[in-house]
Amino acid sequence: MADYTPPIRDMQFVLHDVLDVATAEIPGYEELERDFTAAVLEEAGKISAALLAPLNAAGDAQGCRLENGTVTTPEGFRDAYARIREGGWIGLDADPDYGGQGMPYLLGTAVGEMFVSANMALNMYQGLTHGAYSAIHAHGSPEQKALYLPRLVSGEWSGTMNLTEPQCGTDLGLIRTKAEPQEDGSYRITGQKIWISGGEHDLTDNIIHLVLAKIPGGPEGTKGISLFIVPKFLPDADGNPGARNGVTCGGLEHKMGIHGNATCVMHYDGATGFLVGKEHAGLRAMFTMMNEARIGVGLQGYAMAAAAQQQAASFARERLQGRAIGRPAAPDRPADPIIVHPDVRRNLMVQKAFVEGARAFAFWGASLIDRAARNDDAEAEALVSLLTPVIKGFLTDKGFETAVAAQQTFGGSGYVREWGVEQMVRDARIAMIYEGTNGIQALDLVGRKLGQEGGAAVRAFFAEVEAAIAGAKGGPLEDEYAAPLRAALSDMQAAAGYFLKRAAQNPEDALAGAHDFMHLFGHVALGLMWLRLAQAARRGLDAGAADATFLEAKLATGRYYMARELPATALHRARIEAGGASVMALPAEAF
Amino acid sequence: MADYTPPIRDMQFVLHDVLDVATAEIPGYEELERDFTAAVLEEAGKISAALLAPLNAAGDAQGCRLENGTVTTPEGFRDAYARIREGGWIGLDADPDYGGQGMPYLLGTAVGEMFVSANMALNMYQGLTHGAYSAIHAHGSPEQKALYLPRLVSGEWSGTMNLTEPQCGTDLGLIRTKAEPQEDGSYRITGQKIWISGGEHDLTDNIIHLVLAKIPGGPEGTKGISLFIVPKFLPDADGNPGARNGVTCGGLEHKMGIHGNATCVMHYDGATGFLVGKEHAGLRAMFTMMNEARIGVGLQGYAMAAAAQQQAASFARERLQGRAIGRPAAPDRPADPIIVHPDVRRNLMVQKAFVEGARAFAFWGASLIDRAARNDDAEAEALVSLLTPVIKGFLTDKGFETAVAAQQTFGGSGYVREWGVEQMVRDARIAMIYEGTNGIQALDLVGRKLGQEGGAAVRAFFAEVEAAIAGAKGGPLEDEYAAPLRAALSDMQAAAGYFLKRAAQNPEDALAGAHDFMHLFGHVALGLMWLRLAQAARRGLDAGAADATFLEAKLATGRYYMARELPATALHRARIEAGGASVMALPAEAF
Repeated sequence: MADYTPPIRDMQFVLHDVLDVATAEIPGYEELERDFTAAVLEEAGKISAALLAPLNAAGDAQGCRLENGTVTTPEGFRDAYARIREGGWIGLDADPDYGGQGMPYLLGTAVGEMFVSANMALNMYQGLTHGAYSAIHAHGSPEQKALYLPRLVSGEWSGTMNLTEPQCGTDLGLIRTKAEPQEDGSYRITGQKIWISGGEHDLTDNIIHLVLAKIPGGPEGTKGISLFIVPKFLPDADGNPGARNGVTCGGLEHKMGIHGNATCVMHYDGATGFLVGKEHAGLRAMFTMMNEARIGVGLQGYAMAAAAQQQAASFARERLQGRAIGRPAAPDRPADPIIVHPDVRRNLMVQKAFVEGARAFAFWGASLIDRAARNDDAEAEALVSLLTPVIKGFLTDKGFETAVAAQQTFGGSGYVREWGVEQMVRDARIAMIYEGTNGIQALDLVGRKLGQEGGAAVRAFFAEVEAAIAGAKGGPLEDEYAAPLRAALSDMQAAAGYFLKRAAQNPEDALAGAHDFMHLFGHVALGLMWLRLAQAARRGLDAGAADATFLEAKLATGRYYMARELPATALHRARIEAGGASVMALPAEAF
Repeated sequence: MADYTPPIRDMQFVLHDVLDVATAEIPGYEELERDFTAAVLEEAGKISAALLAPLNAAGDAQGCRLENGTVTTPEGFRDAYARIREGGWIGLDADPDYGGQGMPYLLGTAVGEMFVSANMALNMYQGLTHGAYSAIHAHGSPEQKALYLPRLVSGEWSGTMNLTEPQCGTDLGLIRTKAEPQEDGSYRITGQKIWISGGEHDLTDNIIHLVLAKIPGGPEGTKGISLFIVPKFLPDADGNPGARNGVTCGGLEHKMGIHGNATCVMHYDGATGFLVGKEHAGLRAMFTMMNEARIGVGLQGYAMAAAAQQQAASFARERLQGRAIGRPAAPDRPADPIIVHPDVRRNLMVQKAFVEGARAFAFWGASLIDRAARNDDAEAEALVSLLTPVIKGFLTDKGFETAVAAQQTFGGSGYVREWGVEQMVRDARIAMIYEGTNGIQALDLVGRKLGQEGGAAVRAFFAEVEAAIAGAKGGPLEDEYAAPLRAALSDMQAAAGYFLKRAAQNPEDALAGAHDFMHLFGHVALGLMWLRLAQAARRGLDAGAADATFLEAKLATGRYYMARELPATALHRARIEAGGASVMALPAEAF
């Protein structure tokens, strides 16, 4: 079974030395002093390492069980969830008006990374609950807020998102679930939803389903979708779980991973539902939940990579095979640890450079969400909206790739269950798929976000990168960091220019390059992060910081990223500029 | 459950239109007329589709069971194996002196692809048996050959490879299993071996273990390793299974995939073993088996990708979501098939271009093995020895990546078991690890093969590529195929030059780039294949071939590879030329 070591030192470095949160002039951030965040992260780290991680492998092996309509989660999940709830972690960044702690989203992100790294399947119950909270908080009526939010925030009740039906995943216009208005103002919900994470389980007293459905007679397609609250138990007059509602779990999916999370087929048989927001405005309301979920899934991508990476590094330090070139590193032992071998080292650098760059990227994104919400900053809002598909798509593609790389470090041990890393690979795989496949993220990025308001957001991103490059001019980071970042940025600008020129005349050219642009963007973002990480490390070293080894490692890892990962932008640019003709050439039957 | 469609048309194209086998002047190839290979492939295809593929998902779900030392394979495996055996497939390319059919290795490769695509776990029992046959055929005594080969060739008995021990995987010098000489000329074998594929099962009457062990008093390290035959049942005077030998299965591994194959912990408790070849010459003998196994594993890599690709293409043609840009492709249906969407198409092209290029590469490699063996051609031998780590490493890395890409085409369905593709991903993953991890392949390529005989083999490969480029000069394939291949070749030559210059002064620079060189090499090899495939398609079209659609698709797929995949060589070159400093900079404890 894999131990988990909370990366608190690294998180503190990003929060304080890179983002300088305490002086960021975002309301609430003034509380985020070094000692305060350390205390929160250490507490969350303890829970992750001592409570969540030990349940992870057993949760995978046992999975969830459906009997007589009741789902039993793996042994220990119920107690662990209760402790998470009692610790107030579910409402960490929720509105204090409803019992939340009102902490910044950024702090929730840092805590979330550890919870996911330790036990992704278990953390999903909490993540969906948070999403339901956010959707009702943004779009619910005052009565709905008063009834549901405190119970979601406390974790007494949990939440779900119900979008997919057998005939409709990405294309929500095809939804068939119907919502018939009743005289009392409620709706009768009838239909089948599939792939509902946490649709039924034994962790909470009630489950609040947020369900997309169509009111008969409404507009065709996505314009006729409304959002409903469908509680498993209808709250009674006191707000306690009352009558059983007409919603049941009809089956559990057998999945590649996240076995500890119940993925349910849900039957709505004339269940009572309550409209959230206006009729036919459901998609917009659900997008509040989806955007949050997408950033949360991006976090899962790199958090699983982080978990796998630390396992790989510790395996590579301990496993003895072969000898270092030149002279033995451990002459008194039968062989050297495999970390001496250049290709093992290369693979570990791939992992480390991604995980630390991705963490900085996710934290930066979270800080933009706080800035947008707490400062009512429209530019920050536009920027994070642009970054959201990159955070989701790039961090989950690369996160999975990194988990696979970590598995490779283990050799044969990586393929057998007892070492734990193969589970991380299986768990990480879903993040590339759900909450909009990464193809949909790429489409959202290139087809929608990139050109919004004349490309204002992407120009703001370019300006951030250019400012960072300019800040490094003439300094010790110019050649090895700023120069490669400048080359990568120029690839990105050329690619964006290509799209802007082509999009109107040949949209297929742009869309055939969307996946590559998402990755190109991700690399430039991580390049920017590594320049900032290096600048922070440099400042620390210049100031004579005590932890010089830690800071030197940051500089070396950044150099690796700049020299060996960032040049991928040229390949993505070449593919984009190759256009869509070769992608679209074949007739469907030729595949 | 996933159906399987044998890709016979594609195989025939490679065999006859690209490799022109019937006139290749390799003894035995003159039999390989179009009709003959079609008949063999169709028969193997039928077995794959009707017998093997239907057992694949159930085999994964059931796995193998160990009870009282006996392993039970999944339902149906025993009967299917009997039918494979009765059909003479196990000895397809084996020596007729021992009951084999004496067919070229190339034909075995084509058949093997289909068997693996249909059911990799089941095919492994056969693959290891073939490996044991080859090792005994090359290194056994006349008596050993007479006793074991006919029974391995017929499939009556099966074989295994026993290298790994808990403390020793890659580094075989650490082997502890000991072999004590007995008065009757046999040896007493004592020790534990792990990860033994097919170490115990119920498919055959006897299992012939090939075991590496050390004779006490011999040289240290790998120079003191000998190879032994250790039968599960000691053959009696008539060659029938007699007394039970002291070798038992102590446990089964719980793995990520290939659940239908029994991966065993084997205990040797003073088992009777028979020396193969000379004392202390075991590693060389085992390498006969390993080299064959490595090519077989490369085949697994692309065969799993091929299986996944055809599933993805058929899913994309049938799944309805969204509408094509411009006008609907299926206006009478609620949505268009997802194959209309550019990013879905891009992903399908990634898969198709890899699979078809890889098949040509594997077939070419197999034809070189035949040329080396049947024409006693040392140059072909040197070339295929150089290509072996590329076939193993590149085709399994990319094969897994391609299976993951195919899974992505399925969206959420790709993550649930019933669609079958997630199993293909789990099964494909092992191929990057076993028979020498891909890191070891890269090391073998750069550290050993590249510089052999002053780089003669790689120069021969360069000459092949240059000849193909020259052959395209002035023709219709010059701009879109030959020019990008020329650029890729120049990246490869620069990288090889970098290694030759650096290897002596700083071996870490070379070894830190080994993985990238293996991939660079693989891309150039597939680029060469696509030029040849395109040339063959062009010839067919010019000759007015009836299947113009098929040939046009080859040209379009090749154009895709050249425009969007082959440019990866520049990235690999950039990484290689970045040197090893950033890879090796960190102290071990900084990871």
